[in-house]
Amino acid sequence: MEVGFVAINHIRCREEYRERFEELFRTRAHAIDRMPGFCGMQVLRPQKPDEPYLVVSFWESEEAFRAWVGSPEFLEGHRRGFEDMRAARERGEESPMTSEFVTYEVIAR
Amino acid sequence: MEVGFVAINHIRCREEYRERFEELFRTRAHAIDRMPGFCGMQVLRPQKPDEPYLVVSFWESEEAFRAWVGSPEFLEGHRRGFEDMRAARERGEESPMTSEFVTYEVIAR
Repeated sequence: MEVGFVAINHIRCREEYRERFEELFRTRAHAIDRMPGFCGMQVLRPQKPDEPYLVVSFWESEEAFRAWVGSPEFLEGHRRGFEDMRAARERGEESPMTSEFVTYEVIAR
Repeated sequence: MEVGFVAINHIRCREEYRERFEELFRTRAHAIDRMPGFCGMQVLRPQKPDEPYLVVSFWESEEAFRAWVGSPEFLEGHRRGFEDMRAARERGEESPMTSEFVTYEVIAR
């Protein structure tokens, strides 16, 4: 299965949340692995501290990626992170992380 | 060979250079493919027009990436792009593209 589409989630963590963030991915649910057209993922820690973490997912096509967003597997895979964000909101704290997806077509290899 | 290190080159092209830029990568020299510890690369075209292209290279280790930067293979692989930039400079024009490397350790898959 050839990678034709890549989604990069740029995640900025509060300093005190970084260790928890990394642990969530080291012990991830692997729900995304069940999606048709999923080709793999990488969690990337920047060497420059002011850059965001990148959560990169590789897909056969844009359609495969779109089918994942909002799916039960998407919710299962983000469950603990979403809970951490809700708990912070309920305590009146700012979010432990912010995220932004940017999507790409693979044009050469 | 497992990917442990990722280098992302963020490339902003002038509008009129985009087609040439994409062609350079579709017909790339494949010099980098000879480097020990090289695990593959992807050229990513953003779906949002204000985002840069990403040239992503996957490496076994940081050492493998560092050995490539400045190597004969690095110069060979960038030859036509560097020539385009030099030609623009000699004509007194601004550069057809700018680039910035950001490097990452893979902490989860």
